[in-house]
Amino acid sequence: MAEEEKTRTLAIICSKGSLDMAYPGLVLANAARMLGIEVKLFFTFWGMDIITKSKVDHLKVTPVGNPAMHMPNLVGVIPGTTDLATAMMKKSLDKIDMPPVSEFLEMIHDAGAEIYACRMAADMMNLNRKDLVNEVDDIVGAMEFLEMTEGAQMLFI
Amino acid sequence: MAEEEKTRTLAIICSKGSLDMAYPGLVLANAARMLGIEVKLFFTFWGMDIITKSKVDHLKVTPVGNPAMHMPNLVGVIPGTTDLATAMMKKSLDKIDMPPVSEFLEMIHDAGAEIYACRMAADMMNLNRKDLVNEVDDIVGAMEFLEMTEGAQMLFI
Amino acid sequence: MAEEEKTRTLAIICSKGSLDMAYPGLVLANAARMLGIEVKLFFTFWGMDIITKSKVDHLKVTPVGNPAMHMPNLVGVIPGTTDLATAMMKKSLDKIDMPPVSEFLEMIHDAGAEIYACRMAADMMNLNRKDLVNEVDDIVGAMEFLEMTEGAQMLFI
Repeated sequence: MAEEEKTRTLAIICSKGSLDMAYPGLVLANAARMLGIEVKLFFTFWGMDIITKSKVDHLKVTPVGNPAMHMPNLVGVIPGTTDLATAMMKKSLDKIDMPPVSEFLEMIHDAGAEIYACRMAADMMNLNRKDLVNEVDDIVGAMEFLEMTEGAQMLFI
Repeated sequence: MAEEEKTRTLAIICSKGSLDMAYPGLVLANAARMLGIEVKLFFTFWGMDIITKSKVDHLKVTPVGNPAMHMPNLVGVIPGTTDLATAMMKKSLDKIDMPPVSEFLEMIHDAGAEIYACRMAADMMNLNRKDLVNEVDDIVGAMEFLEMTEGAQMLFI
Repeated sequence: MAEEEKTRTLAIICSKGSLDMAYPGLVLANAARMLGIEVKLFFTFWGMDIITKSKVDHLKVTPVGNPAMHMPNLVGVIPGTTDLATAMMKKSLDKIDMPPVSEFLEMIHDAGAEIYACRMAADMMNLNRKDLVNEVDDIVGAMEFLEMTEGAQMLFI
């Protein structure tokens, strides 16, 4: 044990499935890979949507319950405002050349980021490997993820 | 100081009081203890509900403002949908043998996880030691928690 | 490389713009500085509101979609309840002598905490340096922030 493990690793647990909370993990993963930092992403709970084939292209952002969006809550519940907020956000993301989530996943995976799905969440939501995007490297439990992230800097999103 | 502190420690700050955000901290704490990792949990802000006797068995999940639940916001505000979403989630948790939150707290505490309540949040919500579940080891300030988590991997939930 | 970097650093990514999620980062930053821990804050996405001049004094907390506030969602959408919940929270914060967010930013910055704005978020929201509070040290990209936080304990709020 003369040699300490020196590789810097960023471990990101993604637990939210909204469009606005999908991007921070992807952006940080991408930035880390560009710096040569190892990246391990673990998708769990609502975050499973981000790596679920049928949902990844339909993530939404809702103005209700998010006071930072500066829309009155009453407006937020009128049908269509979630779609409006989502469209507005997509336009903003497009303006700064952010790729759609599915492309972004492919991009960071090609760049070497490891992508894991949480076994417990998959069981809870009845999701199998074939329901998940191709970039998912494996379905693992929380223990396995903790085992592979010793010494890592961790983020829970 | 020839010997570096080598014990791996996971420090989890739990700031949310919803049912869906209570479980990630508990699951990770449990997985970490099974691997022999030291665990220190710090409950603050809305997370105080998780360790408050009168609330721990009544945590809820709301579909409003959570686009990942795929319910229109208008449905979300109809009285009863929070209860419905909560019941659905409890059923899913039950299916994968997740214990209720109060049992889970007891389980991880028995396994050696340390549980702390935030003094500031307790003061803000007029909560005393007797209002909190038995598993709480102490009520400490943010400074004290930071002092005991030097070198730890940290998560903010 | 005989000498390891030994300075303990806390890196906090602030991605939420609600009043209740503004305080945890500020409280932890303050506690860390009082212990001599280096602090680097990175404001991004909705968290930009916390360091935006026109918004820092008008952060709100909404009861909708936050089951921990124990208000029925239907009440939450009635105009005025966000203001009511915000007023209630401000009163609670005042009771425990918490300074308003703008004062708190000044306080931790004076104590040596470094405050950064995310370039991508600034571009997305059309914010320039002059739109941000004086305490912002610089507008940097995610890569730059990761470069300056090697070895730090990280939190994503």
